[in-house]
Amino acid sequence: MNISIFNKAAIESFEQRYRATFINSLGGFKSLVIVGTKSLSNVANLAPFSSFFHIGAQPALFGLIFRPGTEERHTLSNIITRQQFTVNHVHSSIYVQGHQASARYPAGSSEFNATGLTEAYEDGIDAPFVQESRIRIGAVMREKIDIALNGTTLLLSEIVHVSMPSDCLQRDGFVDLEKAGTLTCSGLDSYHQTERLSRLTYAKPDSWPQAFNVE
Amino acid sequence: MNISIFNKAAIESFEQRYRATFINSLGGFKSLVIVGTKSLSNVANLAPFSSFFHIGAQPALFGLIFRPGTEERHTLSNIITRQQFTVNHVHSSIYVQGHQASARYPAGSSEFNATGLTEAYEDGIDAPFVQESRIRIGAVMREKIDIALNGTTLLLSEIVHVSMPSDCLQRDGFVDLEKAGTLTCSGLDSYHQTERLSRLTYAKPDSWPQAFNVE
Repeated sequence: MNISIFNKAAIESFEQRYRATFINSLGGFKSLVIVGTKSLSNVANLAPFSSFFHIGAQPALFGLIFRPGTEERHTLSNIITRQQFTVNHVHSSIYVQGHQASARYPAGSSEFNATGLTEAYEDGIDAPFVQESRIRIGAVMREKIDIALNGTTLLLSEIVHVSMPSDCLQRDGFVDLEKAGTLTCSGLDSYHQTERLSRLTYAKPDSWPQAFNVE
Repeated sequence: MNISIFNKAAIESFEQRYRATFINSLGGFKSLVIVGTKSLSNVANLAPFSSFFHIGAQPALFGLIFRPGTEERHTLSNIITRQQFTVNHVHSSIYVQGHQASARYPAGSSEFNATGLTEAYEDGIDAPFVQESRIRIGAVMREKIDIALNGTTLLLSEIVHVSMPSDCLQRDGFVDLEKAGTLTCSGLDSYHQTERLSRLTYAKPDSWPQAFNVE
């Protein structure tokens, strides 16, 4: 098997778009969600994100990364203005629409209209959900951290609302994403279904983990 | 289809372990890597992480989250001491060993010995790689951010070294994780293979994205 090795100088010498594709896909599979927000003038906005990451369960915190000078900034400014937003999982019937929501539509137009996804509301959350999405999260912004190293923004938010198909929730609290058809993505544009190998028991020094199932 | 809805009060009332499982699995699929470090006394350390996330390509930055009071803290103190570390992708032949590396082994013992994974070194990186891993990253710590909201630590690091099977790198810079057998995970203990639906062309307002392939 041929191995390719790249050092720092080689990585830095990559052409800009090549490097973006390379580095973005290099880190492994990513969460795929569509974030729903509302502007001050009540325009509903959607944008796909692959940077959702878990931070902690108590409080229920997650992070999102916003790059400078992109469409994601509409989402960020809406969140800063209104505090609440939604996070919607993506399955195989809506991933093309989710991808399309990243196009640079004119300010004031809604990605719901442009993509055909359906605006929906749930009690207690003043932001639009994607009706077609099966696992839906309502969130409130908690802290904004500017990352000086490259000008991106890290937004920390709390999960305050969840809706999902009842049969996707297992007895121990595990959310069976595969049962919901939730996709994963890699790089900027690659979409993947998953197939479970197993859940493994908690690791202890004196034994090997075992596969287990919970319904 | 029955839908389960949870508001903030319901989420906060979950029993602690149930809530950790629920919130951790709720956010979608995650990157799965094994981080390799060395202590000041040259003990090689391994720990699995599901919190690797992409921050930017220029410089090539990523983040990792470290929870307080866990085995991950050995990894963090090693990185702070020695600055360099490795990030190793996980495929189906080594995911049980990777999971096992999260067990609380006594200080001073190496997870390489405990799990049977093989220590390997590459030019320019003073930290242990996992020889069985197919996509391997050498990294240097750049910034540590303490998240006051829950006591976790966000470590920002730069990718300075990459080795991978040559046939996993496509002409446009895209790293084909699926070809390398890289796994994804969900929650604390669920491991998954992937199957690509497609890559989609860059989204533009006046057309729908198309599936494409690059070799």
